[in-house]
Amino acid sequence: MVTRAPVRPVATTGPVLVVGTGLLGTSVGLALSAAGVDVLLSDASPTSQRLAVDVGAGRPVAHMGTEPPRLVIVATPPDVAGACVVDALIHYPRAVVTDVASVKTEVLRDVLHEAELTGDAGVAARYVGSHPMAGRERSGAGAADADLFIGRPWVVVPHAGSTPEAELTVRTLGTDLGAVPLQMDADTHDRSVALVSHVPQLVSSLLAARLAEAPSVALGLAGQGLRDTTRIAASDPRLWTAILAGNAGPVVETLDALRTDLDDLVVHLHAAAEQGPLEGGSVGAVNRIMEAGNRGVARIPGKHGGAPQRFSEVEVLVPDRPGELGRLFSELGEIGVNIEDLTLDHSAGQRVGVARLMVDPARARDAEVELERRGWRIIAHAGIEGIEGS
Amino acid sequence: MVTRAPVRPVATTGPVLVVGTGLLGTSVGLALSAAGVDVLLSDASPTSQRLAVDVGAGRPVAHMGTEPPRLVIVATPPDVAGACVVDALIHYPRAVVTDVASVKTEVLRDVLHEAELTGDAGVAARYVGSHPMAGRERSGAGAADADLFIGRPWVVVPHAGSTPEAELTVRTLGTDLGAVPLQMDADTHDRSVALVSHVPQLVSSLLAARLAEAPSVALGLAGQGLRDTTRIAASDPRLWTAILAGNAGPVVETLDALRTDLDDLVVHLHAAAEQGPLEGGSVGAVNRIMEAGNRGVARIPGKHGGAPQRFSEVEVLVPDRPGELGRLFSELGEIGVNIEDLTLDHSAGQRVGVARLMVDPARARDAEVELERRGWRIIAHAGIEGIEGS
Repeated sequence: MVTRAPVRPVATTGPVLVVGTGLLGTSVGLALSAAGVDVLLSDASPTSQRLAVDVGAGRPVAHMGTEPPRLVIVATPPDVAGACVVDALIHYPRAVVTDVASVKTEVLRDVLHEAELTGDAGVAARYVGSHPMAGRERSGAGAADADLFIGRPWVVVPHAGSTPEAELTVRTLGTDLGAVPLQMDADTHDRSVALVSHVPQLVSSLLAARLAEAPSVALGLAGQGLRDTTRIAASDPRLWTAILAGNAGPVVETLDALRTDLDDLVVHLHAAAEQGPLEGGSVGAVNRIMEAGNRGVARIPGKHGGAPQRFSEVEVLVPDRPGELGRLFSELGEIGVNIEDLTLDHSAGQRVGVARLMVDPARARDAEVELERRGWRIIAHAGIEGIEGS
Repeated sequence: MVTRAPVRPVATTGPVLVVGTGLLGTSVGLALSAAGVDVLLSDASPTSQRLAVDVGAGRPVAHMGTEPPRLVIVATPPDVAGACVVDALIHYPRAVVTDVASVKTEVLRDVLHEAELTGDAGVAARYVGSHPMAGRERSGAGAADADLFIGRPWVVVPHAGSTPEAELTVRTLGTDLGAVPLQMDADTHDRSVALVSHVPQLVSSLLAARLAEAPSVALGLAGQGLRDTTRIAASDPRLWTAILAGNAGPVVETLDALRTDLDDLVVHLHAAAEQGPLEGGSVGAVNRIMEAGNRGVARIPGKHGGAPQRFSEVEVLVPDRPGELGRLFSELGEIGVNIEDLTLDHSAGQRVGVARLMVDPARARDAEVELERRGWRIIAHAGIEGIEGS
């Protein structure tokens, strides 16, 4: 018999209308329905809407009774989110309306434009945007999960004209779904995601694009560094094209700054290529960008939102045979060492992998001694969080 | 009592002289000494040399008897590798000489220059370069390990004038150390590492540099994509400055191509920022680079050197409590599911992490059912290798 974790109590009251029953909308519907909230579902595609109903995310919107929705959540593709939010504000004149699009100024602009056209500021007052920082590799209602938002940031985006009630309703939705609410205005949000999400996506794609026509022999030397830097370059072009084009201003501002640094590097490396490795100022130019990169990466918060934590690293060789990795973790469990984080390194053609385990510095030595006693080969000894070599 | 894996038999015969007792030189010495090869150690720093002797990597070079070294391995910093190789070729006129520097044309140029100066082609004939693709987050003899090279690529770099004997000696060294030998000429090597290692390093640093002065609120939205793309930006600037300046030609050639793509993006995103998201050709420009990135990342070999393998992904929520991760792997061991690869996702401020397990597609459903029966919360169901959302 399959047991599930108990349902959490929620503060959101229905009816809630979810417009757009893709991955995010259906996941919201599943979580709220499981908690006993009355959820209505609407999608331009009858098949998609039917699927969402069938997986238990709510009732078809056509079954709506006399009680209108208190909250409308627009979870359509980003390029129609603004229009759908405006539509919901007009159709449900007492409802709070939010959306889950990953760019916020465009949607807000549509809402404020509508308020100006109609001369009714109350329309905009009921809108507060959201951006749940959660996603999947697959889209659609079939990939939906009530637990999708647990522990993820949920950005709440009020504006100068929105009411405290609307803001509270949207923040409550986030916490009801198990997410961690953060609050910022639309402009700050869009600049922030440009910096930490949209530009990294483009840079990863620019880098991976260099591999498209590269000789196979070069790819045979690929290591973990290349794998990490290009992982997100495998993301869906259709989804990202809509997101990035919708946040062009903040994205291009960051890209301009990056290009200035790149131009400096390129000038000095050209000089070095012509005049020799120690000429042309390339040593200084490379060092400048490496140092700036060190400072930047040090500012990324650790897993608890504070400064990055330092763990001792224990590196273990894992033979490429079935069950070896499971045996390693099983034995670590027996030894009683808690693993704070881990990565697996594989290089092309190798018969073994390296598991990098981050553990409490006070327990690192014990872990190494116990693992070696059980026949594991240990590489790194009590170092700090790992950076691979050249 | 601590047991170690048995010592592997080796084909390399001593005496072997290791010049430079940092991480790589001392690791080579440890592995060969453990296998019974007579290893001599030399370093410009007496303290570093003493440390390497004390950890068991070999004897001091001053103890050399009447028998000269058959093989000299230059493992000095890259900016003096060429001079040290030439020095070894002159001092030991019967020895094969190799080096482990991560850029090969500069060293070869020094060797050929020496051969031309002395009119003795035999000098260059005994040189074949190496590049072991292995490293550590720490440097120095204290971080050395006999197992450092196991399963890692060991690039053997002969040249037009090198002898088959020298080439064989250097390839044998790689296999004796447990590495996987690959062979290519110096130019191909340097272009390859520019593409898969040096440019990714610079691009990661350029991206992370944008975070150095960024508002803290933006960094609070950092997710796994940013962490992955900027991980290697934490690498040592001193080490990388020497490597990158020494490979300026191939590095800047790839950076030039990347900049052309970036320029195209920037032009169209500026137009979109001024004219609206669907204007200015930005949709096409973003889509082009995303599609090229998709093609590029698909060419990175999987862990066995072939095309990337497709595994089923099982995503499990792991509460942030001591021992939970260990318990997960312990239970996976009991269930008998082999984990092909895994990553851990942490977002800032969250109370849980997501473990993404790559498993045999035929076993994915069993793993999910068994884990849920034991109370774990599963997110993704039988998808393919995972890409995070926006």
